[in-house]
Amino acid sequence: MSALRKYEARVDSVDSLLCVGLDSDIKRLPPEFDAVEFPQLDFNRRIIDQTACYASAFKFNMSFYEAAGAAGWGQLKDSLDYLRRSHPGILTISDAKRGDIGNSSAAYARAIFDELGFDAVTLNPYLGSDALQPFLDYKDKACIILCRTSNAGSGEFQYLRVSGRPLWQAVAESVVDTWNANGNCMLVAGATFPEEMAAIRAIAGDMTLLAPGIGAQGGDIGPVLSAGLNSRGKGLIISASRSIIFAGDPAAAAKSTRDEINRFRS
Amino acid sequence: MSALRKYEARVDSVDSLLCVGLDSDIKRLPPEFDAVEFPQLDFNRRIIDQTACYASAFKFNMSFYEAAGAAGWGQLKDSLDYLRRSHPGILTISDAKRGDIGNSSAAYARAIFDELGFDAVTLNPYLGSDALQPFLDYKDKACIILCRTSNAGSGEFQYLRVSGRPLWQAVAESVVDTWNANGNCMLVAGATFPEEMAAIRAIAGDMTLLAPGIGAQGGDIGPVLSAGLNSRGKGLIISASRSIIFAGDPAAAAKSTRDEINRFRS
Repeated sequence: MSALRKYEARVDSVDSLLCVGLDSDIKRLPPEFDAVEFPQLDFNRRIIDQTACYASAFKFNMSFYEAAGAAGWGQLKDSLDYLRRSHPGILTISDAKRGDIGNSSAAYARAIFDELGFDAVTLNPYLGSDALQPFLDYKDKACIILCRTSNAGSGEFQYLRVSGRPLWQAVAESVVDTWNANGNCMLVAGATFPEEMAAIRAIAGDMTLLAPGIGAQGGDIGPVLSAGLNSRGKGLIISASRSIIFAGDPAAAAKSTRDEINRFRS
Repeated sequence: MSALRKYEARVDSVDSLLCVGLDSDIKRLPPEFDAVEFPQLDFNRRIIDQTACYASAFKFNMSFYEAAGAAGWGQLKDSLDYLRRSHPGILTISDAKRGDIGNSSAAYARAIFDELGFDAVTLNPYLGSDALQPFLDYKDKACIILCRTSNAGSGEFQYLRVSGRPLWQAVAESVVDTWNANGNCMLVAGATFPEEMAAIRAIAGDMTLLAPGIGAQGGDIGPVLSAGLNSRGKGLIISASRSIIFAGDPAAAAKSTRDEINRFRS
């Protein structure tokens, strides 16, 4: 099954557009994880156990595992294995923002799709299509291209006007018109910029958009949903990380986020 | 000592602008490494032993280690430790092309500068300055920003015209005018595009440029040197990977590349 169909089936079965971001920064884990051998793995298992029933996707930002070195990579892989075994229907996203020349991108694709076994990866478009082709060639995986990112400074280059429209729009057009030949592309549209989200939706048809930035980054769910839902009332992966995983009660935080999203869907 | 001063001191002491790229793709290692426990580490130690006397920098493309999972990360770290112990004066570059939102970029910076201990990292500008700030804050490390990359499709976005000049030029201007406040920035200028290299040199003053793309990617040394040297006859890191490490005689390949570079320097 393709990553997209896997996601859509999960959205229907648990009635949720929520993606839990396992940004399990070792410096921010609760103190009871200080003395254990595999703190990121143990923490992730707890979060998965508590929140998976409310989630259609989990997103792992690679940086927090790389910061722990080889041990971090081991815990990333073991966390992912645990998630796959316990909840095989959930979409797994490597938030890696990769993009390199061809043979290096091919190695990154092997790392993320083959070695780790993720369903999807985030990719940076700056190097152009030949840099992303090794990822795009995995037809059953999802390639989520950075378009309009959620950070405050994202406009610095993404707003620059090229042939009368902003750079992020040129990226979206390339993805929709060319890179999506295998039907396995998605776009990153930051939840902090609902106006651009609406413009991206207009370009992207029913393509699925990954919307990070609600919660700790300040994006509001209502405007994001009304701007970003596709014609079938889906097409969004709403990602929240710190506001759920570091909440006093992660299960309650996940449930209330899922429910708030659904209030605006109906 | 800053990464820049470290590099320049090494350039003078061994009279070389050569950077050896340890793109140690496990699928391309010679057959004698098939049966060893740590193939990438053993291969890298051999290449370092044979080529370090001709090199001022070593560049590790992260993808080839990530493709081998946690074991690859361990071998990356051990290779780097071996290089530092045996040749402490050589600049070490993580070719990672990272760039993420603030707290994730901070974790990547910890991974690359603290956990692994690299002197320098390559960074992708698409997310804007707040994404790169956590790296820039390491004043003694070098931040090497992607400007004009060496791949064939790099023009797709990098050539787009913004306010009358190509996007790569807007990136170069941001780096020179703003991001280099700590004097720790460099730029990537692909050796496959010597005309743009000259334009980047005109913008960048004496800033050091990382020039990948000679050897397997087809860049010619002569045009790169005449376009890219700075006013002090330095300012370039000329990187060759596959053409050296997979040569029948890596030492001879490194020496001849170093010597060819020097013929055009004098």
